Amino acid sequence: MKLWDKGFSTDKKIDHFTVGNDRELDLVLAKYDVIASTAHAKMLGKVGLITEEETKDLVKALGDIAKDIEKGKFTIENDFEDMHSKIEFLLTEKLGDTGKKIHTARSRNDQVLVAMQLYLKDELNDIKAQVKTFFDLLLNLAEKHKNVLLPGYTHLQIAMPSSFGLWFSAYAESLVDDLYFIEAAHKVADQNPLGSAAGYGSSFPIDRNFTTQEMGFDTLKYNVVAAQMGRGKVEKATAFGISSVAATLSKMAMDICLYMSQNFDFISFPNELTTGSSIMPHKKNPDVFELIRAKCNRIQSVPNQLILIMNNLPSGYHRDLQLVKEVIVPALQDMEACLELMIFSLKEIKVNANILEDPKYDYLFSVDTLNELVKSGMPFRDAYKTMGKAIENGNFKPKRDIEHSHEGSLGNLCLSEIKKKMNALFD
Amino acid sequence: MKLWDKGFSTDKKIDHFTVGNDRELDLVLAKYDVIASTAHAKMLGKVGLITEEETKDLVKALGDIAKDIEKGKFTIENDFEDMHSKIEFLLTEKLGDTGKKIHTARSRNDQVLVAMQLYLKDELNDIKAQVKTFFDLLLNLAEKHKNVLLPGYTHLQIAMPSSFGLWFSAYAESLVDDLYFIEAAHKVADQNPLGSAAGYGSSFPIDRNFTTQEMGFDTLKYNVVAAQMGRGKVEKATAFGISSVAATLSKMAMDICLYMSQNFDFISFPNELTTGSSIMPHKKNPDVFELIRAKCNRIQSVPNQLILIMNNLPSGYHRDLQLVKEVIVPALQDMEACLELMIFSLKEIKVNANILEDPKYDYLFSVDTLNELVKSGMPFRDAYKTMGKAIENGNFKPKRDIEHSHEGSLGNLCLSEIKKKMNALFD
Amino acid sequence: MKLWDKGFSTDKKIDHFTVGNDRELDLVLAKYDVIASTAHAKMLGKVGLITEEETKDLVKALGDIAKDIEKGKFTIENDFEDMHSKIEFLLTEKLGDTGKKIHTARSRNDQVLVAMQLYLKDELNDIKAQVKTFFDLLLNLAEKHKNVLLPGYTHLQIAMPSSFGLWFSAYAESLVDDLYFIEAAHKVADQNPLGSAAGYGSSFPIDRNFTTQEMGFDTLKYNVVAAQMGRGKVEKATAFGISSVAATLSKMAMDICLYMSQNFDFISFPNELTTGSSIMPHKKNPDVFELIRAKCNRIQSVPNQLILIMNNLPSGYHRDLQLVKEVIVPALQDMEACLELMIFSLKEIKVNANILEDPKYDYLFSVDTLNELVKSGMPFRDAYKTMGKAIENGNFKPKRDIEHSHEGSLGNLCLSEIKKKMNALFD
Amino acid sequence: MKLWDKGFSTDKKIDHFTVGNDRELDLVLAKYDVIASTAHAKMLGKVGLITEEETKDLVKALGDIAKDIEKGKFTIENDFEDMHSKIEFLLTEKLGDTGKKIHTARSRNDQVLVAMQLYLKDELNDIKAQVKTFFDLLLNLAEKHKNVLLPGYTHLQIAMPSSFGLWFSAYAESLVDDLYFIEAAHKVADQNPLGSAAGYGSSFPIDRNFTTQEMGFDTLKYNVVAAQMGRGKVEKATAFGISSVAATLSKMAMDICLYMSQNFDFISFPNELTTGSSIMPHKKNPDVFELIRAKCNRIQSVPNQLILIMNNLPSGYHRDLQLVKEVIVPALQDMEACLELMIFSLKEIKVNANILEDPKYDYLFSVDTLNELVKSGMPFRDAYKTMGKAIENGNFKPKRDIEHSHEGSLGNLCLSEIKKKMNALFD
Repeated sequence: MKLWDKGFSTDKKIDHFTVGNDRELDLVLAKYDVIASTAHAKMLGKVGLITEEETKDLVKALGDIAKDIEKGKFTIENDFEDMHSKIEFLLTEKLGDTGKKIHTARSRNDQVLVAMQLYLKDELNDIKAQVKTFFDLLLNLAEKHKNVLLPGYTHLQIAMPSSFGLWFSAYAESLVDDLYFIEAAHKVADQNPLGSAAGYGSSFPIDRNFTTQEMGFDTLKYNVVAAQMGRGKVEKATAFGISSVAATLSKMAMDICLYMSQNFDFISFPNELTTGSSIMPHKKNPDVFELIRAKCNRIQSVPNQLILIMNNLPSGYHRDLQLVKEVIVPALQDMEACLELMIFSLKEIKVNANILEDPKYDYLFSVDTLNELVKSGMPFRDAYKTMGKAIENGNFKPKRDIEHSHEGSLGNLCLSEIKKKMNALFD
Repeated sequence: MKLWDKGFSTDKKIDHFTVGNDRELDLVLAKYDVIASTAHAKMLGKVGLITEEETKDLVKALGDIAKDIEKGKFTIENDFEDMHSKIEFLLTEKLGDTGKKIHTARSRNDQVLVAMQLYLKDELNDIKAQVKTFFDLLLNLAEKHKNVLLPGYTHLQIAMPSSFGLWFSAYAESLVDDLYFIEAAHKVADQNPLGSAAGYGSSFPIDRNFTTQEMGFDTLKYNVVAAQMGRGKVEKATAFGISSVAATLSKMAMDICLYMSQNFDFISFPNELTTGSSIMPHKKNPDVFELIRAKCNRIQSVPNQLILIMNNLPSGYHRDLQLVKEVIVPALQDMEACLELMIFSLKEIKVNANILEDPKYDYLFSVDTLNELVKSGMPFRDAYKTMGKAIENGNFKPKRDIEHSHEGSLGNLCLSEIKKKMNALFD
Repeated sequence: MKLWDKGFSTDKKIDHFTVGNDRELDLVLAKYDVIASTAHAKMLGKVGLITEEETKDLVKALGDIAKDIEKGKFTIENDFEDMHSKIEFLLTEKLGDTGKKIHTARSRNDQVLVAMQLYLKDELNDIKAQVKTFFDLLLNLAEKHKNVLLPGYTHLQIAMPSSFGLWFSAYAESLVDDLYFIEAAHKVADQNPLGSAAGYGSSFPIDRNFTTQEMGFDTLKYNVVAAQMGRGKVEKATAFGISSVAATLSKMAMDICLYMSQNFDFISFPNELTTGSSIMPHKKNPDVFELIRAKCNRIQSVPNQLILIMNNLPSGYHRDLQLVKEVIVPALQDMEACLELMIFSLKEIKVNANILEDPKYDYLFSVDTLNELVKSGMPFRDAYKTMGKAIENGNFKPKRDIEHSHEGSLGNLCLSEIKKKMNALFD
Repeated sequence: MKLWDKGFSTDKKIDHFTVGNDRELDLVLAKYDVIASTAHAKMLGKVGLITEEETKDLVKALGDIAKDIEKGKFTIENDFEDMHSKIEFLLTEKLGDTGKKIHTARSRNDQVLVAMQLYLKDELNDIKAQVKTFFDLLLNLAEKHKNVLLPGYTHLQIAMPSSFGLWFSAYAESLVDDLYFIEAAHKVADQNPLGSAAGYGSSFPIDRNFTTQEMGFDTLKYNVVAAQMGRGKVEKATAFGISSVAATLSKMAMDICLYMSQNFDFISFPNELTTGSSIMPHKKNPDVFELIRAKCNRIQSVPNQLILIMNNLPSGYHRDLQLVKEVIVPALQDMEACLELMIFSLKEIKVNANILEDPKYDYLFSVDTLNELVKSGMPFRDAYKTMGKAIENGNFKPKRDIEHSHEGSLGNLCLSEIKKKMNALFD
């Protein structure tokens, strides 16, 4: 009974519970609410629901608020439920009745929808740009270390020769796939929902095409019920996108933690990127990568969190949908922080050039040696048996000069072709 | 200890556990393994790893197997671990040493990868076509019932007038968004992994561009490590796609179950689509829609199932990845069955034309009545208070002639604009 | 690149990322760290690793910190990574070298483990008590409204008579099952991990039985590796417990939102518990229950979040485990807030006494009428057909006097038996 | 449109979709349906709803069906929707009208509920017994290898000495915690739901206490609405239980796969338990453990699958609940198979006795060496610095004689105390 025993009145209790941490989250979204309100004011003027004078006043006052937001001066005090009521208060304080008119022909539902979608578009673009930066770094590292060999594992057993060139650029090419989902999410977000009001439209003769252009949306979410159904759905689309990127980062972080272990000793990082221990000088704890892994694994839980909140709700707005904000905003912040740290840290990676000198890696070359037999005409399955016996009898001599030449192999990384795939996403 | 007490030898026990239901699932995939093997054989011939004669023989024999598969005559007996070993057996039985050569320069890993990706491309195309059929049906229903009004709810409370036109076309427009994820998944799948062998490429001078064209892939997954990392990732991409479609179907099924309840009584279906009860003749149980809802909700769990299997596995093949087949294949079958049943059933929907005659729905019109005041110049917040008092004093008279005219509203559904969005996906 | 553009040095960037919101969360846990440190200090004294004097000083200084925590005066400044370093700083500031000795024979790993387990035990006990309060309220409501009938639904179709007595007490009995999982979680948490150090024990002759008794743990987690593996596992156990409770609350909240809809109109709440609308006076938006539903649905995602973070990590500590704190602490706070609000709100519920007077509910009684035929000797399947015809021909007259007398039925709620089940958990 | 193009009539299409794979799953449950039907028949006789003669006939006929089930002779043809209709058909075929009377005072809903709960109780008991067997094996292995040292890792970095004694018994002690959840699930399942009929009880004077005793349930689920709400909830409780066990197995499987890698080389298994490769004789692929890991990771997704199916469904039966059978039955079969294989395989484990001879493990002993300084009176933080310098200057000499003596440490495994915890679960 903790919370309510503090002497809150009934209303306060309910308020406290229902408002949650909306005020804090709204500081992130306020910028976008102002953009949408400005477009809305201009549209009201255009269709004659307010006068030219009123329009000018509203646009000017909203511009002032935008500046305050940018300077970090905008606050939402406890008297206000959220950014919407604070902004309307500021407008009314300054403009009187004109300020009140901003709410004509819209409802808080479509205000939240449109602010969130503008926010998500920005975030998705930022993440796309970060992924591109990371991709470029990975390709540079692949090029730089293309000749440094690495054991390739299957079943965590030593299997065939790989290289740092392959390893770095594998993650790069994989990121391209992830961006297909970032792009799909962006398409879902890039449809103006403003004008859907409470989810069933309005009897005012509003001009939704005008606000669409004004805010730079690619198109409208035409159907007002569909626009309302976008609440939660756009966030889930975004979550699918960042979940894809996160999976790739998490996997690479797992590789890094493993390769930094003394049992592998393939790579290392400067001291400031690891956590050491003065009594165990060999310890270079990969805390940054462990936290990237963990945060990215948690990001992968976000679609499921959103599905659980929305699942089996009939159509129409429900207050449940307020909670999606609380899920997606921190997830996006985590995603960006993980990308930043990954880029920041990987720049400093050092690779061990002599890994394969350890004789335990000799067998890596058995398959290539076998292939020589096949090239000389022996059927694969027979060559396989012949080689096996040679190894059993101790006659095996690894052929260490690798000649992998096909597309995407050790000797032919096709980095420029991979780069083309990525660039196609930025045309 | 049940299983092993049946007298299996050690090897049998292990076999039974590791093979799982691979044979059954492989019957679905065998067609694609043959397509890939044919392309591989032609490529081996082209680069001179086998003779022209051998190539011709392999292609012919694979063609015969393809016919058997199509006729349902292809089987995988318990002597064979999977389709790959069965197909190689058939080739060797017919062609001797030539049959064995099919396995030159490839490994089971890339065989599974390529067969799965070809299968997923087909399934994603089928689902896209089904969604389009469903979309067209919804738009037809929207057009047909565009003037039949429906209460619009917020918080499950009666709120504002809606219509069957809005309701049907809302789900249609929503499906367009889902297809962006089906498309993204298709892009991920449409990259040839063949030639990656065990995940580290091959020393044979294979021609991966040739097989890419031969199988009709849009491009290669160049990097062989990236190709191997596609195992599970392509399935997860597909799962994001069907999860999106499933969420839309599930939500509509929830609406339908609610609207069929006697407490709403908005829609009905013919007897053969419902489950009745002779002693409760009013009962029209919506079993089909409940099962669509449940199956679609389960489909939404598939990305998480796949993530749990793959998460935190370092790069390189692990046998864990075999399990993803068991997750994705039934999910795709469920998705298709749900779409089929939804289309099949919705064709028969009957809408109740007189819903709003019930006086409990009078208040639906309060907002529109309010807007009249605003249009006459009163600030929104003031009109709001004035109206509230009118209602409180019992002076409220609903204005039942709806004049919603803006884009996407009751009186202006923009069905052709919505159709354009869909058609853009089929250019 | 946002974060790091603020001009942080390398170390700062890493610090900021790795510390996360640990300081904030640690304010919740500090109390328990002091309890554990006090037990540890006494044990060090007992086994002679520090002197009696040093023991006394440490216990006294820790007591002072405990008082500051209780008064809300304890803070963790940015100079300190977490509560552990702040507390050790305070001890050393006050006691010099003696302060440093508190860290003898322990590591931060087992400090976090033990503090978290003490915290979880307290939280689980609080939640258990809240559930009991809620259970008692539900039984009171069931008793009070036991004769008010309610339609019972199957497939959301009107099916058979139910009652508020059944409805309230169903949720009560269901909560008992949830407590079995709260209890299981408590058992997992009630095993002292202190002394496991970094997860492999210590060469100091510490006395773990002593600290176990001192802190009031039921037993030890003996094996030090098992103790370390408890990190995350104890939190997941807790998550299973609250997920169970949350599912019950979410379901009841769904019922409430439905039953408050004008299409059901079974229950209502005073204005201060709903959100109204002055222009739609019929609207009583159930925001509180919608948010309970949403928060409880999100709580049900917590086990999966934790599994994703921990999955496939080999044994031994990983920094990933730090993130579980960030998941479980807010979830517990949400769980308690939801229970509080549910109790607070349900006290005010008003039930509609005349629901079944609406003729649409007549068929509710068809099954009971049928049973009369069976009791008179007709086989069930035959009576079923006979009744069906009567209804078809319009001859059906509902028998509205209900005589359900068996255990747990309308006329025999067995509330005292249900209460016994609950009480058995508090022996 | 595949499915329905096969020429099914409307009814067939719907049947096919709604029945799903119920018939197959029902073969697993039929045994329990017969047990429940027998108890029900006896109860009907006892309260006089059928004659003594009818009772005897029904009980006898059900006994015959039970024998057929045990012999594997019971089948459910496509003419029958499920086991319930097949069993009723058999009874009616043999006993005419008497056969029909078995359905008096019950509905298919409570038949499924009771059969499922009886089945789950059996499965949970089997799994508990398997876990006990596995626990005993682990303790034996811990005892046998207690003196074989192993590097202990933190952050996957070499940290402190551990041992096979610690490693094996850590998993043993961890399994005890998992059984607390198996026990909680068993308690949830051990409450007779029979008599709840369609979820609202019955007007027949049935005796639910009698059937409770007859079937060996510990108590009743009294409230009939609560009993119906058990559908899905009991399965989820079971899923929490097996998810706990699965997490422990998955983690151990991950350790095993890592430790079998040539980069660790801590353990090995005989050839028949690994998958080799004739050309890479060093390869001992741990397929069995990889599949245990993958299957156990998938089992951990089962609670979430069930939550997604049930979430936000209002109270009362929905056909959605049929799908939970399809989720839980295969998961239980997987759980048992994984436990069997784990037990079967671990019996054959070989541990490498000389791991720590490799000099890279020298630093494992730095902490113990440090502790010597502390025992001689130096404050911990100071000793820490002194040691660090010694290592830096190359003066470090590892003190390899381990003297960990406290409870649960290397030198004092407390196996009998751990055993007591487990035995307490079998009292």
